Amino acid sequence: MKVVVAAETRDHERRVALVPDLVARLTSAGLDVAVESGAGLGALHPDEAYKAAGATIASGDVLAGADVVLSVQPLTPDRIARLRTGAVTVSLLPVSQELDVVQAARDAGVTAFSLELVPRISRAQSMDALTSQALVAGYRAVLVAAEKLPRFFPLSMTAAGTIPPAEVLVLGAGVAGLQAVATARRLGARVQAYDVRAASADEVRSLGARFVELDLPSLEGAGGYAREMTEERAQLQRDLLAPYVSASDVLITTAAVPGRTAPLLVQRPAIEAMKPGSIVVDLAAESGGNVEGSVPGEELQVGGALLWGARNVPSQLPVHASRLFAANVVNLVLLMTVDGKVTPDFADEIVDGAAVTHDGVVRHQNVRDALGEGS
Amino acid sequence: MKVVVAAETRDHERRVALVPDLVARLTSAGLDVAVESGAGLGALHPDEAYKAAGATIASGDVLAGADVVLSVQPLTPDRIARLRTGAVTVSLLPVSQELDVVQAARDAGVTAFSLELVPRISRAQSMDALTSQALVAGYRAVLVAAEKLPRFFPLSMTAAGTIPPAEVLVLGAGVAGLQAVATARRLGARVQAYDVRAASADEVRSLGARFVELDLPSLEGAGGYAREMTEERAQLQRDLLAPYVSASDVLITTAAVPGRTAPLLVQRPAIEAMKPGSIVVDLAAESGGNVEGSVPGEELQVGGALLWGARNVPSQLPVHASRLFAANVVNLVLLMTVDGKVTPDFADEIVDGAAVTHDGVVRHQNVRDALGEGS
Repeated sequence: MKVVVAAETRDHERRVALVPDLVARLTSAGLDVAVESGAGLGALHPDEAYKAAGATIASGDVLAGADVVLSVQPLTPDRIARLRTGAVTVSLLPVSQELDVVQAARDAGVTAFSLELVPRISRAQSMDALTSQALVAGYRAVLVAAEKLPRFFPLSMTAAGTIPPAEVLVLGAGVAGLQAVATARRLGARVQAYDVRAASADEVRSLGARFVELDLPSLEGAGGYAREMTEERAQLQRDLLAPYVSASDVLITTAAVPGRTAPLLVQRPAIEAMKPGSIVVDLAAESGGNVEGSVPGEELQVGGALLWGARNVPSQLPVHASRLFAANVVNLVLLMTVDGKVTPDFADEIVDGAAVTHDGVVRHQNVRDALGEGS
Repeated sequence: MKVVVAAETRDHERRVALVPDLVARLTSAGLDVAVESGAGLGALHPDEAYKAAGATIASGDVLAGADVVLSVQPLTPDRIARLRTGAVTVSLLPVSQELDVVQAARDAGVTAFSLELVPRISRAQSMDALTSQALVAGYRAVLVAAEKLPRFFPLSMTAAGTIPPAEVLVLGAGVAGLQAVATARRLGARVQAYDVRAASADEVRSLGARFVELDLPSLEGAGGYAREMTEERAQLQRDLLAPYVSASDVLITTAAVPGRTAPLLVQRPAIEAMKPGSIVVDLAAESGGNVEGSVPGEELQVGGALLWGARNVPSQLPVHASRLFAANVVNLVLLMTVDGKVTPDFADEIVDGAAVTHDGVVRHQNVRDALGEGS
């Protein structure tokens, strides 16, 4: 069976869905791997590296004979329409934002998998691209902040006096938030973190950071994500967080609810009250933003603070983001590979959860609803 | 006596020679402090902060009535000419590069102190601006590299596989080099360091890094700096270092001999042999460069690597670079302050070493030679 690694076509996407190191895991399972010429360049993998690893390099209409297509961003509807009926695609596919892709996959009779929909169960951890990419984003958020801050992160004891450590506040203690906490701690900052899920307090504390406790009831959600809250409660939370924000040198916000608009956690006055030179990194900028006024891909001055709006942050660390992403993809493909053939078994809850379309049908009711298909 | 903090006039200089926190140390010694309006803005200190700390704010011809002038970069010859006879200046003053400043100070009868010439003795550590600013540069070199590297610095063990730590090589294990080693270690990289002074091996190892030993005799110099070596020996060193360079993800070079051209440690082929995406930071770019082809203030692509040429790196962390610098300045000024008057006592070896001009005379033979004054 022919597995094709598609070159990415969207702006700012430097990742690739398969890295040379992992080609052999597919070929040794009996799959043929073809890589669209140049697909790995953004992640610094030239065609020759794939060739040396046992893949072939394809140009032109590379998707024509594909049985399985791997990509980071979903293929465009246009490319999907050219796939053969029964072909499989594996990629990120945030269904609520990409309904045209879902429709194209349905209409083409393509089996489209969304890595976002891989269930958060322990057997599927190795396929969890949201987690692997959040790890990258959380790490990079701290580096960006440290690089832009006009102060030291660590405590510095020198002959010319002692410099106190930077004060870092992380909002949202999921994978990205915890990685940000860990990285800021590594660099020697004093770190506080907050999450609506009180259960995350222990994880925060185990990384040497202080957990901010607000006088609000907890909101534990299903599947490890936070649930949404009422607007009144959200405003109370913002008001209670404001003094913590204003006292920080660095604020990193990471609160996201997959498929939903990110919660607004920080309003402009709290940012304006920060010290001059403070840095704010809003990792949720693309899904609406945790910080009022953040714009994906832009740096804005808000009072004396610099507000950095994230745009595809994992892609900014393309070598290792691709390495982890590719492992997620390979693990999912191999889960479905029997005797050298990719054969999705919908009795497996991972396959069932991640498959968006199959055989001309959209498989999830909420997506059918969004498409106006009815039940 | 009136101490004036001059606003910096050179490009890319964001530091300031006195910060509000330290104003009281001068005023409580009986000195009046005036700050040129806007002097602290690059380091994020507004005029009001100085005023609140007990300084006055001056505009216009602020140097006219000054007894002591503090600045980071030396005053221009033009400004020095307007100082009264017997006035004191304290600043960085790299004499070999700033002969026109030395001449202007001599001709104006100004007593000019160079922080670079503060002797490296333990009593003078708190006045050692080369050390305090090198600390900033070494820290920032690593942050720049980490921010630009398309890989993780730390080992990452994840459900999608293990990412090995970045390989960082630091050349030159003085203050900046050791701080770079420490910061790269904090971030989880595997670090190797090299210095011509074999004595630095223990310091490198104590920070958890590996000391690179080349088959070359040691070159221990006076005053804690390395001596120069013959060209033949320098080439052998470059050849022996090349494989270490090529095997690194990040190279940070910090080898400098004050007042001299920096030694060339790395030639182009060694950089070209690095992995694509590798980062090279040449902290010595302004004094000739440790790396062939580096240009101060520019990012150049060399093969697959990015070569970042440093230009006034301490100024890129202006808040804390200024805080440490100001402490150095204040400590030197207070050493010379008796009964509310700055009275240099040349019997003190620190004052003697740091004073470049006094009473119309250039005080160091080597500077007189450079000026063609004879002995």
